[in-house]
Amino acid sequence: MKTYAIIGTGAIGGFYGAKLVRAGFDVHFLAHSDCKHIRDHGLVVESKDGDFTLPNVNVYNNAANMPACDVVAVTLKATANHILPDVLPKVVKNNGAVLVMQNGFGYEEEIAKIAGPNHVLGVLCFICSYKAGPGHIRHLDFGHITIGQYTKDGSPSGITPLMQDIAADFTKAGISVRTAPDLATARWKKLVWNVPYSGLSVVLSALTDALNKNPCSRGLAESLMREVCAAAAACSHPIEEAYIREMLEYTDSMTPYRTSMKIDFDEKRKMEVEAIFGNPLRAAIKAGAKVPMMEMLYRELKFMDEENGK
Amino acid sequence: MKTYAIIGTGAIGGFYGAKLVRAGFDVHFLAHSDCKHIRDHGLVVESKDGDFTLPNVNVYNNAANMPACDVVAVTLKATANHILPDVLPKVVKNNGAVLVMQNGFGYEEEIAKIAGPNHVLGVLCFICSYKAGPGHIRHLDFGHITIGQYTKDGSPSGITPLMQDIAADFTKAGISVRTAPDLATARWKKLVWNVPYSGLSVVLSALTDALNKNPCSRGLAESLMREVCAAAAACSHPIEEAYIREMLEYTDSMTPYRTSMKIDFDEKRKMEVEAIFGNPLRAAIKAGAKVPMMEMLYRELKFMDEENGK
Repeated sequence: MKTYAIIGTGAIGGFYGAKLVRAGFDVHFLAHSDCKHIRDHGLVVESKDGDFTLPNVNVYNNAANMPACDVVAVTLKATANHILPDVLPKVVKNNGAVLVMQNGFGYEEEIAKIAGPNHVLGVLCFICSYKAGPGHIRHLDFGHITIGQYTKDGSPSGITPLMQDIAADFTKAGISVRTAPDLATARWKKLVWNVPYSGLSVVLSALTDALNKNPCSRGLAESLMREVCAAAAACSHPIEEAYIREMLEYTDSMTPYRTSMKIDFDEKRKMEVEAIFGNPLRAAIKAGAKVPMMEMLYRELKFMDEENGK
Repeated sequence: MKTYAIIGTGAIGGFYGAKLVRAGFDVHFLAHSDCKHIRDHGLVVESKDGDFTLPNVNVYNNAANMPACDVVAVTLKATANHILPDVLPKVVKNNGAVLVMQNGFGYEEEIAKIAGPNHVLGVLCFICSYKAGPGHIRHLDFGHITIGQYTKDGSPSGITPLMQDIAADFTKAGISVRTAPDLATARWKKLVWNVPYSGLSVVLSALTDALNKNPCSRGLAESLMREVCAAAAACSHPIEEAYIREMLEYTDSMTPYRTSMKIDFDEKRKMEVEAIFGNPLRAAIKAGAKVPMMEMLYRELKFMDEENGK
């Protein structure tokens, strides 16, 4: 049975890590401000699929004290990724795998330099969850993940044994898993949702249901989705037209949701502006795509992010 | 000496009307909520050019009680223009002139149907002022106006005697006046400022100085200005490239300013979204201009305007 390290015990790491613990895996959590609280009180998951508490979890506030694990899940906010060059070598076994369970673009390359490209997987989390308090995760909706293999040039990897291996563990933990033969396309597809809803939820200060109900913001979300698809196509990762309607309807079906970017903004934390907007935007422009609305949203968010700290 | 009616005694009507009174003109103000207060306490102008109070002004809350005047200045928010078909015939003399002292597009045509096209002038106000309280106008910066003659087809009128006549009165009142031979171009030029700064001040919740200081919002303002210029050119009203730099520097020179659209939003009043964004946008699209950022800003503002009332 593989050992897991969870780097960042928040809405993503706290949820998926707890599911793995419950399935009997040996899991080690790195936490920052919550470490002592989790050690004293355990990890509480309030989930639409059933609440549970893990009274005793292996939690650390220093990676140097963690054992080297077979699989390391990076579940930090991308804005904290600067700690990875220090943390990762301590927690990943030789030939161990690293799961990049983050939104957006541009981090797998750096991580591959540490762990080796063949050992890096991207994991996209389709989940509405947030940290309700120290060591307390609230899971509102969805929860499935898509796993893909990182490749240096962004070309499709197909379905690799490593992907299947990890997928089997997550499936055992009761998580719905898809494997993607083409990680880059999967990441662009995730952006088809993230760009409009993460961005507009902050700029328009709104929940997902309000954005989808009002014809102006719904039209704007759809226009932004079209730009993301145009960008993906320009980068040789075309997305089928029907996916736009699918994402609009997926959002219609959601429990009204405050996106994690909006939560970060409201809590005056740094937002993942570069991961979700800046890096894909630069890739799109480099590939010659016309993405003026993405560009405008990026600049609006960057302004709000910078002013939010003041 | 001509008689003046001022329809709307706020940041614009209260300021310019008071200046005309002080210069000896016979001025009649239509006010709504402030009428009794102004009748009892007069009109107070706190201005960077010197404060003054007019203890006795002719103020009305019903147009039916007003005398018909030689010149009627429409200084309402464009969102209140629905009262004009009722009000204007009561307050404008036969062959009297109507000054449309409002931002944006699309209202002179309606007014020309009432007053006759040859009697309608557009007046653009370059002023930072706001209503600080009932009958109390605060004037922060600038104050010059541009007068142009309305024409049915939007073609240049040249400098008409009526324009010169009105310009002479405003000059007598100590107001710096320019006459524009081409009103439509003058209105587009005004939008080069209004679209970025009115729009972004609301969406990004910021004063003019913050918008200009941050490189992201300054770049966004400049991109929006370029789109407005492209729209104006497509509508056969080209604006010289240098005007963009001029407007950026004009804004740099301003006292940090909360735009009147931002004040409306903060006070939960309806914003002039159609006048400043919707009408010009539709004209631009009809003329074949590519204006995706204007379109995005319009939809963002319309969403915010609609949700603001809830």
